[in-house]
Amino acid sequence: MSVHNFNSGPSILPKTVMEEASRAIIDFNGTGLSVLEIGHRTPLFQDVLQEAIGSVKKLMELDDAYEVLFLHGGATTQFMQVPMNLLDNNETAAYCDNGIWGKKAAKEASLFGNVNVVADTSDRSHTYIKKDFAVPADAKYLHITTNNTVEGTQWHQYPEVAVPLIGDMSSDIFSRPADFKKFSLIYAGAQKNMGAAGVNMVVVKKDILGTIKRSIPTIMDYRKHIEAGSLMNTPPVFAVYVSMLTLRWIIAEGGLKEMEQRSNAKSALLYNTIDSLPVFTSRIAKEDRSQTNAVFFLSDPQLEAPFLDLCKKEGMVGVKGYRTIGGVRVSMYNALPISSVQAFCDLMKEFATKNG
Amino acid sequence: MSVHNFNSGPSILPKTVMEEASRAIIDFNGTGLSVLEIGHRTPLFQDVLQEAIGSVKKLMELDDAYEVLFLHGGATTQFMQVPMNLLDNNETAAYCDNGIWGKKAAKEASLFGNVNVVADTSDRSHTYIKKDFAVPADAKYLHITTNNTVEGTQWHQYPEVAVPLIGDMSSDIFSRPADFKKFSLIYAGAQKNMGAAGVNMVVVKKDILGTIKRSIPTIMDYRKHIEAGSLMNTPPVFAVYVSMLTLRWIIAEGGLKEMEQRSNAKSALLYNTIDSLPVFTSRIAKEDRSQTNAVFFLSDPQLEAPFLDLCKKEGMVGVKGYRTIGGVRVSMYNALPISSVQAFCDLMKEFATKNG
Repeated sequence: MSVHNFNSGPSILPKTVMEEASRAIIDFNGTGLSVLEIGHRTPLFQDVLQEAIGSVKKLMELDDAYEVLFLHGGATTQFMQVPMNLLDNNETAAYCDNGIWGKKAAKEASLFGNVNVVADTSDRSHTYIKKDFAVPADAKYLHITTNNTVEGTQWHQYPEVAVPLIGDMSSDIFSRPADFKKFSLIYAGAQKNMGAAGVNMVVVKKDILGTIKRSIPTIMDYRKHIEAGSLMNTPPVFAVYVSMLTLRWIIAEGGLKEMEQRSNAKSALLYNTIDSLPVFTSRIAKEDRSQTNAVFFLSDPQLEAPFLDLCKKEGMVGVKGYRTIGGVRVSMYNALPISSVQAFCDLMKEFATKNG
Repeated sequence: MSVHNFNSGPSILPKTVMEEASRAIIDFNGTGLSVLEIGHRTPLFQDVLQEAIGSVKKLMELDDAYEVLFLHGGATTQFMQVPMNLLDNNETAAYCDNGIWGKKAAKEASLFGNVNVVADTSDRSHTYIKKDFAVPADAKYLHITTNNTVEGTQWHQYPEVAVPLIGDMSSDIFSRPADFKKFSLIYAGAQKNMGAAGVNMVVVKKDILGTIKRSIPTIMDYRKHIEAGSLMNTPPVFAVYVSMLTLRWIIAEGGLKEMEQRSNAKSALLYNTIDSLPVFTSRIAKEDRSQTNAVFFLSDPQLEAPFLDLCKKEGMVGVKGYRTIGGVRVSMYNALPISSVQAFCDLMKEFATKNG
């Protein structure tokens, strides 16, 4: 039976990335050493790190005002690290609460300064993106979650604001071109579109750093990581390596425009199928639907368990909705082939025919 | 040419661990999925994590007063996380400064409370372990670095103290049996004796937690990680998996007694060779020499570069001393076969004959 991997993260990676990573664990670039046993200060790893950084800058078209860091931890680490570096005790940061991750990010920020939730979509169970809100001029920054992995919504146009914009792009990074220079800081856990779990990437505009009075623990200080070139301590070598391979694959396949075209095709196929079959129902505002994480439900809740059982039986992995939301979630990251989405849609149709 | 890997970390891992990890990247346990793309809340990963935790408890003979956590980051993260969780602003922690890592740990603690350096071996360039020192009764804890990777010293008997003892065991963890219950907290970055870079292990006695007034960021709070069973956020899945495999290997090979016997044999061979050849010289007090990281010098500094060149030519990887110390450093972790130490000693003798 073939397996179709719709996991929300850790999630599917390109086949060629897996193959190369598997080989490198036995022999890295003909050195006779495993990639797991090379020193992180050797030219061997320097080449890996520099290629990863260069690929990010190229894909995002960043200039030298920005630095790219690969750090330990995931996006949850950044929920703390962002305000620790940017928000003084007496300052206020603006947060959009469009779902579970934005809410968690705001909660951590409240340990470091004041938090102003300028947009809250809990009134409609986070099924839309609120775009009409004001950000106080003295807010230190505005934080948004560009794609809500759990709820299935996505910002398709980034907000225009006068304060520094910060984006948690964990679940839609490198899925489409954008004007990334609108952001002063972008972060993402790697384990969706960028690689394996265990590393997070931070893109930071240098001019927002150094504006607070707090003493920052060394390992949390972006400036110290910049000085050390992401080598302040032993980095998560293998996770950085897998990110480098995945970024190389994105570029070789045609870059962000190509990723967007594939994403458009996959998500159109799935959403059209949902909309055409009354047995399924999407609660998300159409214009805010996520192209990477489609969250939907069985119109008759009694059919949810049988449908998920069928998915399991047919090798559709990771399609159960998030534990607090329920329903179905189909994640369509860069590495997911459209044939997997087609197979899933065929199964939906088969199920609809039998249960229509 | 065969390669002998004396890297100080990331460092050599058992061959069978590499082979199994390499296979799992293509197909994990016959699931048709890569270990890089499995969900961290699935039974697949639960089994990995629980085996890793169980192996640590078994090897260290820990009772239920202790919890074992696998967290993002390395030991450097713990330099901050330990005092953040345990040291209130008006309290004092005692630190032993036996070298670069202990000094860094003390520096981070000073951001959270008062630090009392109760033993400082910089008077003799950190070439010994100071054992006669007093710890104030009101110290919140005493922090030691059980093995000094850079300087080449090691605690062979842990100190007896009346306050909670905390050990950074990054570079000698699982190299020998000990009464680990002497410690209230033990931490270690994985990339030496325990696995790949990108995860650190914390063993913590629960009764020392919850004694401070500070608000701790969620991702840094040991209690929250205990509640969540090391699954508060997406863990570094692959790094935990490699640790599990390495722990499984240690147990299969005979556990900590066997690791100690091998370590004794390897380090005796190397130190005897150093002591027998006047061209080499060790500056470390004999009773404090590290069994995992032998640091030594060429008696004639002019011979250092030629010796290191010869090592490179003969496939001896990672034997250059730490950048601030110079000289030669030979790391002999669990996975290093004694044949590699023998090959290195043969090369030392050959060099001594030509330059004696």
